[in-house]
Amino acid sequence: MKRLLATLAIVMMTSAAPAVAQDQLIEDAKSYFEPIPTVVPAPKNNAITHDKVRLGKMLFFDPRLSSSHLLSCNTCHNVGLAGADGLSTSVGHGWQKGPRNAPTVLNALFNVAQFWDGRAEDLKAQAKGPIQAGVEMNSKPERVVEVLKSIPAYVGAFTEAFPGEEDPVSFDNVAKAIEAFETTLITPSSRFDQFLEGNTTVMTAHEKQGLQLFMDKGCVACHNGVNIGGNDYYPFGVVEQPGADILPRADKGRFAVTDTASDEYVFRAPPLRNVALTAPYFHSGNVWHLKQAVAVMGTAQLGEDLNDEEIDAIVAFLDTLTGEQPQVEYPLLPASTDTTPLPELMIAK
Amino acid sequence: MKRLLATLAIVMMTSAAPAVAQDQLIEDAKSYFEPIPTVVPAPKNNAITHDKVRLGKMLFFDPRLSSSHLLSCNTCHNVGLAGADGLSTSVGHGWQKGPRNAPTVLNALFNVAQFWDGRAEDLKAQAKGPIQAGVEMNSKPERVVEVLKSIPAYVGAFTEAFPGEEDPVSFDNVAKAIEAFETTLITPSSRFDQFLEGNTTVMTAHEKQGLQLFMDKGCVACHNGVNIGGNDYYPFGVVEQPGADILPRADKGRFAVTDTASDEYVFRAPPLRNVALTAPYFHSGNVWHLKQAVAVMGTAQLGEDLNDEEIDAIVAFLDTLTGEQPQVEYPLLPASTDTTPLPELMIAK
Repeated sequence: MKRLLATLAIVMMTSAAPAVAQDQLIEDAKSYFEPIPTVVPAPKNNAITHDKVRLGKMLFFDPRLSSSHLLSCNTCHNVGLAGADGLSTSVGHGWQKGPRNAPTVLNALFNVAQFWDGRAEDLKAQAKGPIQAGVEMNSKPERVVEVLKSIPAYVGAFTEAFPGEEDPVSFDNVAKAIEAFETTLITPSSRFDQFLEGNTTVMTAHEKQGLQLFMDKGCVACHNGVNIGGNDYYPFGVVEQPGADILPRADKGRFAVTDTASDEYVFRAPPLRNVALTAPYFHSGNVWHLKQAVAVMGTAQLGEDLNDEEIDAIVAFLDTLTGEQPQVEYPLLPASTDTTPLPELMIAK
Repeated sequence: MKRLLATLAIVMMTSAAPAVAQDQLIEDAKSYFEPIPTVVPAPKNNAITHDKVRLGKMLFFDPRLSSSHLLSCNTCHNVGLAGADGLSTSVGHGWQKGPRNAPTVLNALFNVAQFWDGRAEDLKAQAKGPIQAGVEMNSKPERVVEVLKSIPAYVGAFTEAFPGEEDPVSFDNVAKAIEAFETTLITPSSRFDQFLEGNTTVMTAHEKQGLQLFMDKGCVACHNGVNIGGNDYYPFGVVEQPGADILPRADKGRFAVTDTASDEYVFRAPPLRNVALTAPYFHSGNVWHLKQAVAVMGTAQLGEDLNDEEIDAIVAFLDTLTGEQPQVEYPLLPASTDTTPLPELMIAK
């Protein structure tokens, strides 16, 4: 019977369906979601210029921002892998495993704040974290500045990117330049965005059924806005906490940021753009398949055992969130000099 | 007195010097060196096609060729860092240190054979090494093929790159595609190449003095041809073996390949193109500065304590070997699927 109803639903949403139903679906979707804007909003206190973006791209790819000279931002936020790394949790300095799954850098500027717990208010604040984290790039602001000041081409690039500043090569400006580059890492023109802009034929009936379910079942309560998520905080396990493999009890999420009991196991709802490309899922990164992730969300957040047809349709909808990936020309990084600090591979005990 | 002579030598080679001296320097240089050819020679048994290069670029950047899904060819042969990694010896799976310094991939097709000991006859043979080495990418041919066959876009790309083959997704074809991409990683139009082609004003008098010394002192005996090295094997320490930090006694070089006593501590003369960008130096990678590397070569290979003026001039000449770096657009790597083997981070004991 369920299968019959699902089939009927599909039939109702084919191109033969009345225009009014299509219009209603778009109108409903537009009340929850927004396409990626053609003009990217400016980050706070960081005017975007060509020189700053160019410098930021160099820094994003430069492994000398890590103490080992082996790890760059791109190691875990690989622009060829939809801005993530495809690992459960990232691997950093000394092959140490980080505590959480690397969120994609793509479209990250549209998030309300950065990291799974929102502890960085924007991308320039975020950029400073992994560079210094002992399990990630393991460097220090002074070391980063020392490396960059030892390389004349970097000094020139900072001077151009931050004109008029007395001491342009600073850790703050490293972060600002990286943020500037990251504002270019957006994925417009997904099929869903085209649909939101009025192209009703770009999504299949099955995908539209998934969109309808996504809204009707309540997924949209947390996953909405430009990034279909990423814009507010919610408990993981509203109805029922998933197993400790998916929700390790030691990681209390936003509680560590706010020290507020109601924030235990609260996380920023992950943005779902390009989600089909960014397995594994959840902050713990132990769910490898999108279907399983959708099923977990059903039981944990909605108190509902979604059936296979529903899950398939929702996954089909999620596939339409894959946008045009950014085209990035690999930057040429200027050579180290006689005064550049040497790589440090040792692991602190 | 030495300084006076050096000054005199410089004066003699300024643009005011007789044309005949300039012509003689070019003629001498052309008897030892060749510019990077405008038509790259075809590798053996591997016709270069656009589809093959495109696939090879994806593979070169894809960390899923490693068992950890974290390390790619580009990790140690970073196209933004002149095709090397700037470490003494490379770091691979489990943060293990490899035994030797990573040679640059740039212009590698012009070398007589690959690796410091020449144990791979060409780039397709070379490519298979690090993918399987336990201290590098730590994968296996079967695993690599399993990963690639699990990703439809890769199956399509192999089918296009190897038309008419019954089983195009093979480890041999992985190596061939990577070789095809690597034939594009060349650095033409260095100032020295322009000089060889007749532009006598593109090098300064100081650089020309260095070139003259490079030939007169005998550096050219090992460092000649298109790659200014890379085309034959020589003992490290012809006259005097350097200290064990530079020439670790346990690594007997080509002896391990040929099992011939006369090949003890014999290595392929490193190609010197872009050498100013590829510190640290020697197979042990413990010399960080080019001046020191030149001095070591003087005592070890030529039995000569080069003075500071000579070293400065030779380093100035070596700086002219920096060519146009390849412009590489970061490839978009297709997503893993439900059947892709998961990353394996464990380190074998």
